[in-house]
Amino acid sequence: MEKFQAKNPDFEAVVRDSFARQPFMAHVNAEMTALAPGVCELKTVRMTELTQQHGFFHGGLVVSLADSAAGYAAYSLFPPSSTVLTVDLKTNFLNPANGQMLKAVGTVISEGDKLYHVKAEAFSIDNGKEKLCLTGLFTMMCLQGKSDGVAVDGK
Amino acid sequence: MEKFQAKNPDFEAVVRDSFARQPFMAHVNAEMTALAPGVCELKTVRMTELTQQHGFFHGGLVVSLADSAAGYAAYSLFPPSSTVLTVDLKTNFLNPANGQMLKAVGTVISEGDKLYHVKAEAFSIDNGKEKLCLTGLFTMMCLQGKSDGVAVDGK
Amino acid sequence: MEKFQAKNPDFEAVVRDSFARQPFMAHVNAEMTALAPGVCELKTVRMTELTQQHGFFHGGLVVSLADSAAGYAAYSLFPPSSTVLTVDLKTNFLNPANGQMLKAVGTVISEGDKLYHVKAEAFSIDNGKEKLCLTGLFTMMCLQGKSDGVAVDGK
Amino acid sequence: MEKFQAKNPDFEAVVRDSFARQPFMAHVNAEMTALAPGVCELKTVRMTELTQQHGFFHGGLVVSLADSAAGYAAYSLFPPSSTVLTVDLKTNFLNPANGQMLKAVGTVISEGDKLYHVKAEAFSIDNGKEKLCLTGLFTMMCLQGKSDGVAVDGK
Repeated sequence: MEKFQAKNPDFEAVVRDSFARQPFMAHVNAEMTALAPGVCELKTVRMTELTQQHGFFHGGLVVSLADSAAGYAAYSLFPPSSTVLTVDLKTNFLNPANGQMLKAVGTVISEGDKLYHVKAEAFSIDNGKEKLCLTGLFTMMCLQGKSDGVAVDGK
Repeated sequence: MEKFQAKNPDFEAVVRDSFARQPFMAHVNAEMTALAPGVCELKTVRMTELTQQHGFFHGGLVVSLADSAAGYAAYSLFPPSSTVLTVDLKTNFLNPANGQMLKAVGTVISEGDKLYHVKAEAFSIDNGKEKLCLTGLFTMMCLQGKSDGVAVDGK
Repeated sequence: MEKFQAKNPDFEAVVRDSFARQPFMAHVNAEMTALAPGVCELKTVRMTELTQQHGFFHGGLVVSLADSAAGYAAYSLFPPSSTVLTVDLKTNFLNPANGQMLKAVGTVISEGDKLYHVKAEAFSIDNGKEKLCLTGLFTMMCLQGKSDGVAVDGK
Repeated sequence: MEKFQAKNPDFEAVVRDSFARQPFMAHVNAEMTALAPGVCELKTVRMTELTQQHGFFHGGLVVSLADSAAGYAAYSLFPPSSTVLTVDLKTNFLNPANGQMLKAVGTVISEGDKLYHVKAEAFSIDNGKEKLCLTGLFTMMCLQGKSDGVAVDGK
């Protein structure tokens, strides 16, 4: 896997600040547990509110965590004064997410001027044992000269 | 678009009961606003808790609503004593979901013994005006002889 | 479905010229059978060389036809002096492509400055009866100021 | 990455025989260059007939090679007397496929009774230097008790 260099020396502060301004991530109890150039890890702990009818983490929640992990993996490589939007995502569900904790890891595969291709995986963790429950590909767009704090339009 | 027939005369009660047992859908304030054989519509109203850093509905939330709409569109066509799991999903984000309400509509495209292909679209609604913000394809698996109320394994 | 306007009055000549310079489309016997702003239809006739081990059109061939149809549907809306590249694609296979003819139709869903979202469907045609065998979503990139006739890089 | 065991001691003969009965793979000059339980590699050499208007390998051709590599990676793990169909595929195009040779590698990620999730990557090779040009996820269906040599229906 290629190693990527951050273009913004303040990438960590910028990414963590943006994550803190995603109310939906707080609503699903997510925390950013690791961050490096091109890689972001998020975790959430099982609450009944995050489950579906079989008692697993809801598939949409798993995708949500993977999407934010993928977006911030990309965003960590963006230049200053830019923001990020998801263009598309695609995920396969490999196993039910039936553990006590859910972890999503986004890893940039390829970077361009405007488009970043990112892989994300989600793991269900039960008594410390990890099981891959989702793998996916995400296309992220870098919007330069746009604020991360107000409404933007990726078109 | 092909018209589909329900195989379970009680499909409406079965689907609505299952939806009511998805705590995550309640956590994101979603309601089932329409249901017919092969078609399901869900809506949620904007709350700050559902948004991301630009103030839009979070992309993961939009996918979550689309996933449940797609799953229940398929489930409405399943035989009695079965349950549903998402195999994979893929979505394109066409416009930011910046309205006051979000609507997702799942529509079955094709049915088999075990696999159902479903299209889902999500619309952001602002002052009654709808804007398509997501379109996606979902593969749903029909698990016969499995309960919808306890842990199942799609493998 | 939204109606789109061509930005290039010569779009038809430009698109047909580009298609004629895709040797792979000739290799799979494809013809452009319809073209309008935002819509492109391609067809190929069954030859043994296009099939897989069950005697169906090979899934990769079906995707290939859909990809070119989607790309030229987008390209028909591009401004002059631009070219097109596929960013990503995602397809569900609904039925085996077992007919005598294969038709792919690309239809633009949404256009931006740089990214176009396109739906494509492929139909297997047997004795004049059409069967939907593939549905997919394609993201196409508009590269302005780049030639359609020499090597380009979408990054 | 999990290691998988072949269930059919004759998997290599079975897979290579099936590949030899895909006329489309011969039409695009593809050869099976490696095979192990859960892993399949295919290669093709650049011919003008495989290219698009910029002189790159056509994106559809790249997907075709990846699709067959993914399908045979899965098929290598199937029990005797079964066959394989692609349920869905999703790919990101990372770099133009502008080399003299194209290589696709399919690798099984997860196996079930009926569904296999497979990753595939394609590399453009120029003067021995490999460049990742496509990454994708494929869902493959195992049809037991069906012949690999006659028409089958995955539904």
